[in-house]
Amino acid sequence: MDSVNDNGSQNIYDNQVFFDGYRKLRENPDSSNVLEEKPALFSLSPDLTGLSVLDLGCGYGENCAEFKRRGAWKVVGVDISEKMLSIAKTENTGIEFINADMSDLSFITAKFDVVFSSLAIHYVKDFARFAKSVAALLNPGGYFIFSQEHPLTTAPLAGASWTRDVSGIALHYNLTDYARGGKRSTTWIVDGVVKYHRTFSELINALTDCGFMIEKLSEPVPTEETILRLPAYAQDLHKPNFLLIKAIKSQPMS
Amino acid sequence: MDSVNDNGSQNIYDNQVFFDGYRKLRENPDSSNVLEEKPALFSLSPDLTGLSVLDLGCGYGENCAEFKRRGAWKVVGVDISEKMLSIAKTENTGIEFINADMSDLSFITAKFDVVFSSLAIHYVKDFARFAKSVAALLNPGGYFIFSQEHPLTTAPLAGASWTRDVSGIALHYNLTDYARGGKRSTTWIVDGVVKYHRTFSELINALTDCGFMIEKLSEPVPTEETILRLPAYAQDLHKPNFLLIKAIKSQPMS
Repeated sequence: MDSVNDNGSQNIYDNQVFFDGYRKLRENPDSSNVLEEKPALFSLSPDLTGLSVLDLGCGYGENCAEFKRRGAWKVVGVDISEKMLSIAKTENTGIEFINADMSDLSFITAKFDVVFSSLAIHYVKDFARFAKSVAALLNPGGYFIFSQEHPLTTAPLAGASWTRDVSGIALHYNLTDYARGGKRSTTWIVDGVVKYHRTFSELINALTDCGFMIEKLSEPVPTEETILRLPAYAQDLHKPNFLLIKAIKSQPMS
Repeated sequence: MDSVNDNGSQNIYDNQVFFDGYRKLRENPDSSNVLEEKPALFSLSPDLTGLSVLDLGCGYGENCAEFKRRGAWKVVGVDISEKMLSIAKTENTGIEFINADMSDLSFITAKFDVVFSSLAIHYVKDFARFAKSVAALLNPGGYFIFSQEHPLTTAPLAGASWTRDVSGIALHYNLTDYARGGKRSTTWIVDGVVKYHRTFSELINALTDCGFMIEKLSEPVPTEETILRLPAYAQDLHKPNFLLIKAIKSQPMS
């Protein structure tokens, strides 16, 4: 399962078992994606009216459709998985979908006003190179807005784990290996899913090194209403699930 | 012990027991301050030749002296503790020391090229207000460079703790309460030392909100040589001790 291409990317979403399991997960209206990640991602979005948008790791294309609804005149989605894109193409119109590994963006020649990426960047091996190529695709003053698994989630070499009491309440998150960046082979739906761990400083320094200005970070937590309705979400106050970063491509000096 | 002033600041360093214990800690050449924090702080420093420097929470003034050695023409140190400053004044010349709570900088009217703060900002209650007042003290293009306890260290409401095996090796850091910002009352040398926990996003958003551009983050780890010589330092790869941020005050738009 743990096979990666020359860029270090794995096409796990074209694995049938993973694909079916993922589809089921995403249909859950109470997933942390729906309750935490999506609201945070869209809260970071500028007004998209009249803007061109690129979505890296677009999956089913549901965010692409939302960017369109929010007024983007052009939306392009990129995903490594043919299976994901075949659904994306069926469910959405007026969006261009490209089947490619987002780790190598050299095939894109157009420029965009906003580049989004939702929960895909932890699959990219070389983030510094990736950030540089995103910067090259953006118009000056354009935004790069992405979410990824929280660095505290990706940190442990043995996979994320908790210490719980007998009733299952999370006592603490078992944090290890935070300062050890690099490849992680984890079990998520199937064995051998390849991700890459990066510290906050590695992420932010890679962005500022290629001319991005950091505008905002977000580490969303569940609302009080969510915790009341779904008490298991309280553990996210110990360790958030997601990190989101909004960065601006610097204007050239006048 | 747990008494704070109107700014939420505590003058713990004027407590005799704390003062004596701290002095002993700082005399240890193998402390994490010496091996991790100081090299990281100075590696973020620009060339100080001919620059004016303000050091917030200067303590004994040893960093002030180093700024002077590195060519700063003017160095001002601020500290809440009279005891610390009495030593600073004895040990250093050519530096202006001011006894004041760095949480309220309204008494400073001069402008500076660089504002440093080493391991003091976790004592400041209102970081957003503090960052704004630092920005007001900086010349355009000036730097704000600070270190603080790592957010993973300040997170647990019950204080930082580890799960270890029988031989004392750290198995994992017991992370709790990361997303719960605010006051922490911890035991460090004495009981009831008041600190404030902030997430990465709270820190960075407060800085960008008042016009700082983030240039670099640093989460220093021990060198291989240190780990070979002092194996207990290996646990810092699970959870770093320090976070440092270098930010630039934006130039006014031309």
